[in-house]
Amino acid sequence: MSASSSEESAGPASTVRRGRPGYDQRQILEIAVQVFIEQGYDATSVSSLADRLGLSKSALYHHYASKERLLELALDEAMGALEAVLLEPGAAAGSAGEQLEHVLRGAVRVLVDKLSYVTLLLRVRGNSDIERAALARRRGFDDQVTQLVRAAQAEGTVRTDIGAAVATRLLFGMVNSIVEWYRPSGPEGATELADDVLTVALDGLRTR
Amino acid sequence: MSASSSEESAGPASTVRRGRPGYDQRQILEIAVQVFIEQGYDATSVSSLADRLGLSKSALYHHYASKERLLELALDEAMGALEAVLLEPGAAAGSAGEQLEHVLRGAVRVLVDKLSYVTLLLRVRGNSDIERAALARRRGFDDQVTQLVRAAQAEGTVRTDIGAAVATRLLFGMVNSIVEWYRPSGPEGATELADDVLTVALDGLRTR
Repeated sequence: MSASSSEESAGPASTVRRGRPGYDQRQILEIAVQVFIEQGYDATSVSSLADRLGLSKSALYHHYASKERLLELALDEAMGALEAVLLEPGAAAGSAGEQLEHVLRGAVRVLVDKLSYVTLLLRVRGNSDIERAALARRRGFDDQVTQLVRAAQAEGTVRTDIGAAVATRLLFGMVNSIVEWYRPSGPEGATELADDVLTVALDGLRTR
Repeated sequence: MSASSSEESAGPASTVRRGRPGYDQRQILEIAVQVFIEQGYDATSVSSLADRLGLSKSALYHHYASKERLLELALDEAMGALEAVLLEPGAAAGSAGEQLEHVLRGAVRVLVDKLSYVTLLLRVRGNSDIERAALARRRGFDDQVTQLVRAAQAEGTVRTDIGAAVATRLLFGMVNSIVEWYRPSGPEGATELADDVLTVALDGLRTR
């Protein structure tokens, strides 16, 4: 189990114990996500998951009905947290430019807090109904951010020589890349990381 | 076969025919890359590859010794093109800031030209010696770009309040995201796309 997932499982959600020795529901999900990331979801068998957990297949099925259900819950964990950022007061307060800044900061925070879940989400390719549903939610999220970029362009706080959709994709290209290289044990915390993303996204690397 | 790979296979490299009907060496590689992207490399069997190509397994082995060899060639195609950008005259001419701009533009061009190969490269997780070798080459490339960012910081053309390594990762987060959403059939060409990336990376989205 990696440092990131054991940190996450130390949260309040890990108190949902089933009264049996070994892993609780939450920890099983955490470890399943790690295995999906390492082996690829499609290539992961229920047997290999059970092996990793030191559980029999039937014990694993006692906790979760299927591999698909684990994927569904993991993707919901990531998408739910991203969508929640759009509902925070800061995502509706001030200028559209300030709202956009709030949403980008919030997205970086979610990526750091739920690194493994978002990593899995970003690897989803639409090979099943569950994956397609998650992709549709991602598109919905992207659309809302694109509208925010468009509103910021209309009010004059964001440049208009780049299309709002391309700008949004480049912004989230930067944000999402965090899952590829960010390590919670490294020198940079979530706040500093968000500052760096916002600086590049809004002001660019060039000195002036 | 997708629009992108059939466009690529129309290039000069597709003239390496083996004098037998059906696919040539190059086209087999193109299609294999598509299948690896769709199904995941680990989850792709030689049988499913052969099925997709309408070849017997032994006919496929006549062209390529193994699935691993196809992966190796595909990753070399992507990394070779990226490394070649660093050897272009523009990557050594002018200020470090100008060199960095040249390299970013070149990387966008490679991503668009070799979309499927780079897509595969970016999905590599280090599950085999071939994958680990490709990851090591990627790190070498990133290191060279990081040195360029550092030189641009030293000469005063790139801001110094973001570390060179983080700046490089955010830049390539933006650049690499192109493989996730760029479609050759869309309205934006490689040059316009490179302009947009450079604009966000160097000047940011904020109006001034």
